[in-house]
Amino acid sequence: MILNIIGIIHTPFQRSSGAPVQASLAGGAEGTVEVYEPFSAGLRDLDGFARIWLLYWFDRAALPPESLIVAPYLDHQARGVFSTRAPSRPNRIGLSPVQLVAIERNILRVRDIDVLDGTPLLDIKPYVPRFDSFPNSRAGWLESVASGQILADDRFEQK
Amino acid sequence: MILNIIGIIHTPFQRSSGAPVQASLAGGAEGTVEVYEPFSAGLRDLDGFARIWLLYWFDRAALPPESLIVAPYLDHQARGVFSTRAPSRPNRIGLSPVQLVAIERNILRVRDIDVLDGTPLLDIKPYVPRFDSFPNSRAGWLESVASGQILADDRFEQK
Repeated sequence: MILNIIGIIHTPFQRSSGAPVQASLAGGAEGTVEVYEPFSAGLRDLDGFARIWLLYWFDRAALPPESLIVAPYLDHQARGVFSTRAPSRPNRIGLSPVQLVAIERNILRVRDIDVLDGTPLLDIKPYVPRFDSFPNSRAGWLESVASGQILADDRFEQK
Repeated sequence: MILNIIGIIHTPFQRSSGAPVQASLAGGAEGTVEVYEPFSAGLRDLDGFARIWLLYWFDRAALPPESLIVAPYLDHQARGVFSTRAPSRPNRIGLSPVQLVAIERNILRVRDIDVLDGTPLLDIKPYVPRFDSFPNSRAGWLESVASGQILADDRFEQK
């Protein structure tokens, strides 16, 4: 299982502190996704999609704690890492549904971006409501913290 | 970027041929997700979620074609790989939103599973409608093929 870095994500967020914790909470922040030339042919037909999944590597996140229990941004209570979207996880793969604004050659302009500047890109998949949208799905502890902290801090950064 | 296999997915599907092409088209197929013991502590608090994202490795998929153009199951026309959910992609990471039925220790019973038996598990994330659900998102070429082939064949298998 060898990962190829297929591109790089450019955003206004240089550090975790102050970055949005989720794409849907990013308040329309804009960024660009640069797909490296050897992979850009795979972008054909993507322009018809309003939203895309970005899969990327949390390259600046610390390893998860031994206990696998983390204190997520959106709550005051520690939680099992797999019940959170925290970046410090056994495989530091991030997943963000961002708005696709435009494609110019190998550069994608996107909105609602919540990742750090310079993040390595792993994959792009189309967002398809009939595959991906479950508006009424019960969301455990995240239902009771609708007003949690929506900007990150440095708790998951490598020290 | 080193990937840890954190578990294994057990399903009724031994081969691509005849397996569902998407979780939402899986017709309720059931499976189990076995999270290996060193990682099972991270499952705490997950039981409140009706649906979870499984991230896994398409271990039996062929490498993508040089052209990065693939013939997806749901259409008769070849498409840029990043506009499809085809398993033969530069990083063979799969993404499926499955229903979480029950958790017993380190075993998750799930429904709407569309992956092959024995698939290596990379990550579990909670499905959160306010992060993940965009019911009206325009879906490009996939909007015009509502009645495509919903069972896979062997086109993406390693030969």
